[in-house]
Amino acid sequence: MDDPCKARQVLGIVGDKWAMLVVRMLKDGPRRFTELKRSVDGISQRMLTVTLRDLERDGIVTRTVVAVMPPHVSYELTPMGRTLREATAPLLAWSIEHLPHIDAAREAYDNR
Amino acid sequence: MDDPCKARQVLGIVGDKWAMLVVRMLKDGPRRFTELKRSVDGISQRMLTVTLRDLERDGIVTRTVVAVMPPHVSYELTPMGRTLREATAPLLAWSIEHLPHIDAAREAYDNR
Repeated sequence: MDDPCKARQVLGIVGDKWAMLVVRMLKDGPRRFTELKRSVDGISQRMLTVTLRDLERDGIVTRTVVAVMPPHVSYELTPMGRTLREATAPLLAWSIEHLPHIDAAREAYDNR
Repeated sequence: MDDPCKARQVLGIVGDKWAMLVVRMLKDGPRRFTELKRSVDGISQRMLTVTLRDLERDGIVTRTVVAVMPPHVSYELTPMGRTLREATAPLLAWSIEHLPHIDAAREAYDNR
Protein backbone atom coordinates (compact mmCIF):
# COMPACT_ATOMS: atom_id res chain seq x y z
CA MET A 1 0.00 0.00 0.00
CA ASP A 2 3.01 2.26 0.05
CA ASP A 3 3.02 1.90 -3.70
CA PRO A 4 0.70 4.79 -4.61
CA CYS A 5 -0.04 3.35 -8.03
CA LYS A 6 -1.29 0.12 -6.49
CA ALA A 7 -3.28 2.08 -3.92
CA ARG A 8 -4.98 3.99 -6.69
CA GLN A 9 -5.70 0.84 -8.62
CA VAL A 10 -7.36 -0.97 -5.73
CA LEU A 11 -9.39 2.05 -4.70
CA GLY A 12 -10.60 2.37 -8.25
CA ILE A 13 -12.20 -1.00 -7.64
CA VAL A 14 -13.74 -0.55 -4.24
CA GLY A 15 -13.84 3.21 -3.75
CA ASP A 16 -17.06 3.61 -5.63
CA LYS A 17 -20.30 4.46 -3.89
CA TRP A 18 -22.50 2.47 -6.25
CA ALA A 19 -20.33 -0.63 -5.97
CA MET A 20 -20.43 -0.36 -2.18
CA LEU A 21 -24.21 0.01 -2.15
CA VAL A 22 -24.74 -2.93 -4.51
CA VAL A 23 -22.42 -5.15 -2.44
CA ARG A 24 -24.38 -4.16 0.65
CA MET A 25 -27.73 -4.95 -1.01
CA LEU A 26 -26.49 -8.47 -1.81
CA LYS A 27 -25.53 -9.25 1.77
CA ASP A 28 -28.59 -11.42 2.49
CA GLY A 29 -28.34 -13.56 -0.64
CA PRO A 30 -29.05 -13.47 -4.40
CA ARG A 31 -31.07 -10.63 -5.86
CA ARG A 32 -32.57 -10.04 -9.29
CA PHE A 33 -31.53 -7.09 -11.39
CA THR A 34 -34.96 -5.53 -10.93
CA GLU A 35 -34.77 -5.93 -7.15
CA LEU A 36 -31.38 -4.21 -7.07
CA LYS A 37 -32.66 -1.43 -9.31
CA ARG A 38 -35.49 -0.83 -6.84
CA SER A 39 -33.39 -1.04 -3.66
CA VAL A 40 -30.42 1.07 -4.73
CA ASP A 41 -32.27 4.35 -4.83
CA GLY A 42 -31.18 6.81 -7.47
CA ILE A 43 -29.12 4.41 -9.56
CA SER A 44 -29.87 4.44 -13.27
CA GLN A 45 -30.43 1.27 -15.28
CA ARG A 46 -27.18 1.90 -17.14
CA MET A 47 -25.11 2.64 -14.01
CA LEU A 48 -26.42 -0.52 -12.33
CA THR A 49 -25.58 -2.57 -15.44
CA VAL A 50 -22.04 -1.15 -15.55
CA THR A 51 -21.51 -1.57 -11.79
CA LEU A 52 -22.67 -5.21 -11.85
CA ARG A 53 -20.53 -6.03 -14.88
CA ASP A 54 -17.45 -4.52 -13.21
CA LEU A 55 -18.17 -6.42 -9.98
CA GLU A 56 -18.59 -9.64 -11.96
CA ARG A 57 -15.35 -9.03 -13.85
CA ASP A 58 -13.54 -8.39 -10.55
CA GLY A 59 -14.78 -11.71 -9.12
CA ILE A 60 -17.00 -10.04 -6.51
CA VAL A 61 -20.41 -11.12 -7.81
CA THR A 62 -21.67 -13.98 -9.97
CA ARG A 63 -24.34 -13.51 -12.61
CA THR A 64 -26.78 -16.36 -13.22
CA VAL A 65 -29.46 -16.57 -15.87
CA VAL A 66 -32.39 -18.36 -14.25
CA ALA A 67 -34.27 -20.27 -16.94
CA VAL A 68 -37.72 -20.26 -15.40
CA MET A 69 -40.71 -18.43 -16.82
CA PRO A 70 -40.23 -15.58 -17.00
CA PRO A 71 -36.45 -15.98 -17.27
CA HIS A 72 -34.44 -13.52 -15.18
CA VAL A 73 -30.91 -12.69 -14.14
CA SER A 74 -29.77 -13.15 -10.56
CA TYR A 75 -26.69 -11.75 -8.84
CA GLU A 76 -24.92 -13.12 -5.78
CA LEU A 77 -21.76 -12.30 -3.82
CA THR A 78 -18.84 -14.68 -4.33
CA PRO A 79 -16.88 -15.79 -1.23
CA MET A 80 -14.45 -12.93 -2.01
CA GLY A 81 -17.40 -10.58 -2.37
CA ARG A 82 -18.58 -11.56 1.10
CA THR A 83 -15.21 -10.63 2.58
CA LEU A 84 -15.42 -7.29 0.78
CA ARG A 85 -18.84 -6.73 2.29
CA GLU A 86 -17.33 -7.29 5.75
CA ALA A 87 -14.46 -4.89 5.03
CA THR A 88 -16.84 -2.11 3.99
CA ALA A 89 -19.01 -2.44 7.11
CA PRO A 90 -16.89 -0.13 9.34
CA LEU A 91 -16.93 2.60 6.72
CA LEU A 92 -20.69 2.34 6.29
CA ALA A 93 -21.19 2.40 10.07
CA TRP A 94 -18.88 5.44 10.34
CA SER A 95 -20.90 7.18 7.65
CA ILE A 96 -24.21 6.68 9.40
CA GLU A 97 -22.80 7.77 12.75
CA HIS A 98 -21.12 10.92 11.42
CA LEU A 99 -23.65 12.14 8.90
CA PRO A 100 -25.15 14.72 11.31
CA HIS A 101 -21.67 16.05 12.14
CA ILE A 102 -20.83 16.32 8.46
CA ASP A 103 -24.09 18.17 7.80
CA ALA A 104 -23.26 20.59 10.63
CA ALA A 105 -19.70 21.11 9.34
CA ARG A 106 -21.05 21.89 5.87
CA GLU A 107 -23.51 24.41 7.19
CA ALA A 108 -20.78 26.14 9.21
CA TYR A 109 -18.48 26.18 6.19
CA ASP A 110 -21.11 27.58 3.87
CA ASN A 111 -22.07 30.33 6.33
CA ARG A 112 -18.62 31.59 7.15
CA MET B 1 -28.71 2.84 6.63
CA ASP B 2 -31.92 1.24 5.52
CA ASP B 3 -32.82 4.62 4.12
CA PRO B 4 -31.25 4.31 0.66
CA CYS B 5 -31.20 8.06 0.17
CA LYS B 6 -29.12 8.52 3.30
CA ALA B 7 -26.86 5.65 2.28
CA ARG B 8 -26.24 7.33 -1.03
CA GLN B 9 -25.54 10.66 0.61
CA VAL B 10 -22.96 9.33 3.05
CA LEU B 11 -21.20 7.25 0.42
CA GLY B 12 -21.00 10.29 -1.77
CA ILE B 13 -18.80 11.69 0.97
CA VAL B 14 -16.53 8.79 1.73
CA GLY B 15 -16.88 6.53 -1.32
CA ASP B 16 -14.31 8.42 -3.31
CA LYS B 17 -10.91 6.99 -4.04
CA TRP B 18 -9.12 10.34 -4.00
CA ALA B 19 -10.66 11.32 -0.68
CA MET B 20 -9.66 7.95 0.81
CA LEU B 21 -6.09 8.31 -0.46
CA VAL B 22 -5.76 11.88 0.84
CA VAL B 23 -7.11 10.87 4.27
CA ARG B 24 -4.60 8.04 4.35
CA MET B 25 -1.71 10.35 3.41
CA LEU B 26 -2.58 12.61 6.37
CA LYS B 27 -2.47 9.80 8.91
CA ASP B 28 0.96 10.73 10.30
CA GLY B 29 0.25 14.44 10.77
CA PRO B 30 -0.06 17.70 8.81
CA ARG B 31 1.08 17.83 5.20
CA ARG B 32 1.55 20.69 2.76
CA PHE B 33 -0.41 20.85 -0.47
CA THR B 34 2.77 20.20 -2.44
CA GLU B 35 3.61 17.14 -0.33
CA LEU B 36 0.14 15.70 -0.90
CA LYS B 37 0.38 16.41 -4.62
CA ARG B 38 3.62 14.42 -4.73
CA SER B 39 2.46 11.51 -2.58
CA VAL B 40 -0.98 10.93 -4.11
CA ASP B 41 0.28 9.63 -7.42
CA GLY B 42 -1.78 10.50 -10.46
CA ILE B 43 -3.94 13.18 -8.83
CA SER B 44 -4.17 16.44 -10.75
CA GLN B 45 -3.68 19.82 -9.09
CA ARG B 46 -7.34 20.58 -9.66
CA MET B 47 -8.63 17.26 -8.34
CA LEU B 48 -6.48 17.60 -5.20
CA THR B 49 -7.78 21.14 -4.66
CA VAL B 50 -11.41 20.00 -5.02
CA THR B 51 -10.89 16.93 -2.82
CA LEU B 52 -9.26 18.96 -0.03
CA ARG B 53 -11.96 21.62 -0.18
CA ASP B 54 -14.70 18.99 0.08
CA LEU B 55 -12.91 17.30 2.99
CA GLU B 56 -12.54 20.67 4.73
CA ARG B 57 -16.22 21.47 4.16
CA ASP B 58 -17.18 18.07 5.58
CA GLY B 59 -15.16 18.70 8.74
CA ILE B 60 -12.62 15.98 7.96
CA VAL B 61 -9.53 18.14 7.43
CA THR B 62 -8.46 21.61 8.57
CA ARG B 63 -6.65 24.02 6.28
CA THR B 64 -4.07 26.34 7.82
CA VAL B 65 -2.14 29.11 6.11
CA VAL B 66 1.33 29.05 7.64
CA ALA B 67 2.72 32.59 7.55
CA VAL B 68 6.42 31.81 7.37
CA MET B 69 8.63 32.57 4.40
CA PRO B 70 7.72 31.20 2.00
CA PRO B 71 4.09 31.04 3.18
CA HIS B 72 2.36 27.73 2.55
CA VAL B 73 -0.88 25.90 3.23
CA SER B 74 -0.99 22.92 5.54
CA TYR B 75 -3.72 20.27 5.91
CA GLU B 76 -4.41 18.09 8.91
CA LEU B 77 -7.05 15.54 9.91
CA THR B 78 -9.62 16.72 12.46
CA PRO B 79 -10.55 14.33 15.31
CA MET B 80 -13.49 13.21 13.13
CA GLY B 81 -11.09 12.78 10.22
CA ARG B 82 -8.93 10.49 12.33
CA THR B 83 -11.92 8.26 13.06
CA LEU B 84 -12.66 8.15 9.32
CA ARG B 85 -9.08 7.09 8.68
CA GLU B 86 -9.58 4.20 11.12
CA ALA B 87 -12.86 3.18 9.47
CA THR B 88 -11.25 3.03 6.02
CA ALA B 89 -8.34 0.86 7.18
CA PRO B 90 -10.14 -2.52 6.76
CA LEU B 91 -11.18 -1.65 3.22
CA LEU B 92 -7.65 -0.62 2.30
CA ALA B 93 -6.23 -3.78 3.85
CA TRP B 94 -8.81 -5.87 1.97
CA SER B 95 -7.82 -4.16 -1.26
CA ILE B 96 -4.13 -4.93 -0.87
CA GLU B 97 -4.81 -8.53 0.07
CA HIS B 98 -7.22 -9.21 -2.78
CA LEU B 99 -5.64 -7.30 -5.63
CA PRO B 100 -3.98 -10.43 -7.11
CA HIS B 101 -7.31 -12.31 -6.99
CA ILE B 102 -9.07 -9.43 -8.68
CA ASP B 103 -6.41 -9.32 -11.38
CA ALA B 104 -6.85 -13.06 -11.94
CA ALA B 105 -10.65 -12.74 -12.06
CA ARG B 106 -10.37 -9.98 -14.66
CA GLU B 107 -8.05 -12.00 -16.83
CA ALA B 108 -10.42 -15.00 -16.69
CA TYR B 109 -13.40 -12.77 -17.50
CA ASP B 110 -11.68 -11.09 -20.43
CA ASN B 111 -10.56 -14.43 -21.89
CA ARG B 112 -13.86 -16.24 -21.69
